[in-house]
Amino acid sequence: MLPVAVDAMGGDKAPDEIVAGAIQAAEELGVPVVLVGRPEELGDTGGLDVIPASEVIAMDADPAKSVRRMKDSSLVRAAEAVRDGKASAMVSAGNTGATMGSALLRMGRIKGVNRPAIATPIPAPGHEHPTVMLDAGANAECSPEMLVQFAVMGAVFARRRYGIETPRVALLSIGEEATKGSPLVKETHALLADGAVEAAGATFIGNVEGRDLMGDDADVVVTDGFTGNVALKTLEGGLKAIVGAIYEVFGSTEETRAAADVLLPALIPLAEQLDPDTTGGAMLLGVDGVCIISHGSSSAPAVVNAVKVAAEMVEADLVGELTAAIRPPE
Amino acid sequence: MLPVAVDAMGGDKAPDEIVAGAIQAAEELGVPVVLVGRPEELGDTGGLDVIPASEVIAMDADPAKSVRRMKDSSLVRAAEAVRDGKASAMVSAGNTGATMGSALLRMGRIKGVNRPAIATPIPAPGHEHPTVMLDAGANAECSPEMLVQFAVMGAVFARRRYGIETPRVALLSIGEEATKGSPLVKETHALLADGAVEAAGATFIGNVEGRDLMGDDADVVVTDGFTGNVALKTLEGGLKAIVGAIYEVFGSTEETRAAADVLLPALIPLAEQLDPDTTGGAMLLGVDGVCIISHGSSSAPAVVNAVKVAAEMVEADLVGELTAAIRPPE
Repeated sequence: MLPVAVDAMGGDKAPDEIVAGAIQAAEELGVPVVLVGRPEELGDTGGLDVIPASEVIAMDADPAKSVRRMKDSSLVRAAEAVRDGKASAMVSAGNTGATMGSALLRMGRIKGVNRPAIATPIPAPGHEHPTVMLDAGANAECSPEMLVQFAVMGAVFARRRYGIETPRVALLSIGEEATKGSPLVKETHALLADGAVEAAGATFIGNVEGRDLMGDDADVVVTDGFTGNVALKTLEGGLKAIVGAIYEVFGSTEETRAAADVLLPALIPLAEQLDPDTTGGAMLLGVDGVCIISHGSSSAPAVVNAVKVAAEMVEADLVGELTAAIRPPE
Repeated sequence: MLPVAVDAMGGDKAPDEIVAGAIQAAEELGVPVVLVGRPEELGDTGGLDVIPASEVIAMDADPAKSVRRMKDSSLVRAAEAVRDGKASAMVSAGNTGATMGSALLRMGRIKGVNRPAIATPIPAPGHEHPTVMLDAGANAECSPEMLVQFAVMGAVFARRRYGIETPRVALLSIGEEATKGSPLVKETHALLADGAVEAAGATFIGNVEGRDLMGDDADVVVTDGFTGNVALKTLEGGLKAIVGAIYEVFGSTEETRAAADVLLPALIPLAEQLDPDTTGGAMLLGVDGVCIISHGSSSAPAVVNAVKVAAEMVEADLVGELTAAIRPPE
């Protein structure tokens, strides 16, 4: 397998944690990894090859401008490596918009794909696998046709990533009835109900609500990138607020601290399930290559998981499967 | 004060819990309460008067049709009582759409209000007061002008309800930059940045993201009813999933059960803060009367809190304040 290109400069903890994760991934998973970034800033790369890139796109930089202007940035070079057959996939915890932009610019779209979408795994405690939600923020404005493509791509991804033979695809709305929701949702519902995902081996199960995201009702939940991003961030913020409040109670007296000492080890598996570092990151579906967008706060274990998922998706020929599932408009 | 009209037939636990809550509210708060519903189904009303209504709009009934056809329903009669000066406010845990419809049909809109919006308090653990989010689901499709009115109404409500002299109003988006988001968000941002809420004594602080809803960054968060409803339900579902998972860990072994026994009493204040029963329900802003929409799962304490908030909002002349703040288009 060609190496997975890891953007060593992207993320709040770059380059140290990213490099450490890349080294660990290569050692523990046996997956070939190549780092992309400023060689002089990477420290000991543990023998990993480096694709040099002199520029770094900042986390808060304007994505479109940066990608256009910074042709020697680690992000653009990572995407280029995939395009040029020097890497099998790219992984970045950097600027999300610039990661998408670089992938689009250098890898291009899969033939027939209108717009790529970000597929994010939403943890579903107590259930076998997370819920795949897309689009989690690539496209603030969507058409019904785009959402239908997201549904098809999400179904293919859920099958390859989680082994779900016939993924249940749902549409995010504000009520289960087909007549509820925004005009976008109603039109998309009609297209999906008309059999738009059946050719991809999936089943459309109708609308779900925000409360179903962390449950087991659907395998794939489709929405526009604005709503999806709000839902994802709301969930992140909500979990953070509640976990923070619980920890505060745990630490409030000597008695509660002692009780918490007993409970905390038992809570670790749950905490891990909710930690975005464990999911392997989000996937940019629709570009002509495997591209993983990790959380900006990624530390070494997140990079290990992202490299693992990237390698699995390359082995599973995710891009080939997506290409076959997307029929260009006639 | 005129009595608060409580829809005795609305909600998953109606009429028993609703009647119990109404009696408790009258006794403990000294607020006059009148029940609305089928007298023969209400049991002992503890001396409370009853406005008879022979029909009940089911929780899952079509709101528009039901309100139009069921003129002798408890919801329509409750709204009518406010219009006719027989009640000061209405409270219902019933069908949300039908509650809005009844209020709109019988009370009408405040002059100049384009569309009413549902303002929901989002708990913010560790902070002084919840975040007011609107619209939480009344209008799946909104214009920038509607969102500006929601901002003004939300600011007036936050001041009257939580005593915030100069509410900080924010717009829900997918990034803090004014250039991010959907076309609706960008246009609304421009109007709000141009001073649209300053006349109402509020400050526009820009965009916030979903993760800020449970925090202290903004007092009022404005969004369209589709996004707001998805965010609200996502939060509800997320909290439920995580609390459920934590309880499961607590109960898993003898040791964890013993430790949990120590912690659970300390967790009660947090659980109460997160319980929708404690917030007093959501408020329909923009109709010409006080209308509280309680959670469908409301039990007696939720009704007590809703009656309390209703009475406070009547005393504070919320509707008069809203009327003064909304300038009809010239």
